[in-house]
Amino acid sequence: MHLTEEHRMRVYGDLLSGNCYKIKLLLEHLAIAHDWVPVDILAGETRTPTFLAMNPNGKIPVLELPDQRWLAESNAILNYLADGTPYLPADRWARAQVLQWQFFEQYSHEPYIAVARFIAKYLGLPGERRAEYEAKQAGGLRALKVMDDHLARSRFFVGDSMTIADMALFAYTHVAGEGGFDLAPFAGVRRWIGEIEQHPRHVPMPAG
Amino acid sequence: MHLTEEHRMRVYGDLLSGNCYKIKLLLEHLAIAHDWVPVDILAGETRTPTFLAMNPNGKIPVLELPDQRWLAESNAILNYLADGTPYLPADRWARAQVLQWQFFEQYSHEPYIAVARFIAKYLGLPGERRAEYEAKQAGGLRALKVMDDHLARSRFFVGDSMTIADMALFAYTHVAGEGGFDLAPFAGVRRWIGEIEQHPRHVPMPAG
Repeated sequence: MHLTEEHRMRVYGDLLSGNCYKIKLLLEHLAIAHDWVPVDILAGETRTPTFLAMNPNGKIPVLELPDQRWLAESNAILNYLADGTPYLPADRWARAQVLQWQFFEQYSHEPYIAVARFIAKYLGLPGERRAEYEAKQAGGLRALKVMDDHLARSRFFVGDSMTIADMALFAYTHVAGEGGFDLAPFAGVRRWIGEIEQHPRHVPMPAG
Repeated sequence: MHLTEEHRMRVYGDLLSGNCYKIKLLLEHLAIAHDWVPVDILAGETRTPTFLAMNPNGKIPVLELPDQRWLAESNAILNYLADGTPYLPADRWARAQVLQWQFFEQYSHEPYIAVARFIAKYLGLPGERRAEYEAKQAGGLRALKVMDDHLARSRFFVGDSMTIADMALFAYTHVAGEGGFDLAPFAGVRRWIGEIEQHPRHVPMPAG
């Protein structure tokens, strides 16, 4: 009887990538059965014809539905999976704010904090990328300041409970130290990280 | 009688910025009355205390509702305004695809095509930014190729009619030439641009 396995959704990704881990975090909170298919970007596994058929843009994560439909872009996947759950409010204004923070994450946060972390953690901070790594620091600190100011006034990013906006921003923020960012000055961010990590359904990013 | 004016929404932005123009395009398609408040980023108008109170991230566009609530991030604004209209399908999978393309736009398209255009058109391609301008070309061409392959199979980005995914991608694509990108090899993209420009409610980006 293969039905059960055939009807599970799959996620292609790398749990050390914040963009992938944020999907895992939501799946665990929602207790959605799934198979995780590890993908090694440094080994070129996102550039194969098979992978490009799923996501022509050649990036992880990719969500695969049991009927072989694929969805790329981590925040689009979060919105799809969270629809109808408390992690994505039904109210139109609240949803817009969730998206506002998710687009902030992808444009003003990830390109600094995640890229600096990638250069340091995945590539080992090679000399030829040190200038780029250094250049990412100011933008990352700016993003953390915007977050910290907001979290001084608000328990979570949108409203009083955790949404996919928090998950999107938590993914790379809680490991920002690996990109050279000191979270000590950002008390609001540290308080918020603690709240997320204490949730009974929380799953940590693997050490690696 | 001030009621009408007081109840109009406002958009703070620069119509030559694709991120702002995409909002104008949707507002015209939906015939939503609004006031457009010009903001000059090069004159520092996004760094004033008044502006930062609206968007602490200091970026245009910002949508202001009549009751003084503010929303930032162009694609979050598009989703908010289009909700309940044909420009944002109600179907959960279609909405996820719209978001997929909008996040693609902000992560894999705008940072190359819009930034190259900004350096060339706004800053006049100064010598100290020429290397950055050149470095943006490959990523921009990659994004155009992903779009072109999709548009070879699909009339619009999601389904058979125009959505906010098309508006988001049209904004900087149709002026990609100003960033040094030749659209001639991308027949699907050119066909799609033509369809959008021929819509009876289309409003062009101002010459500037």
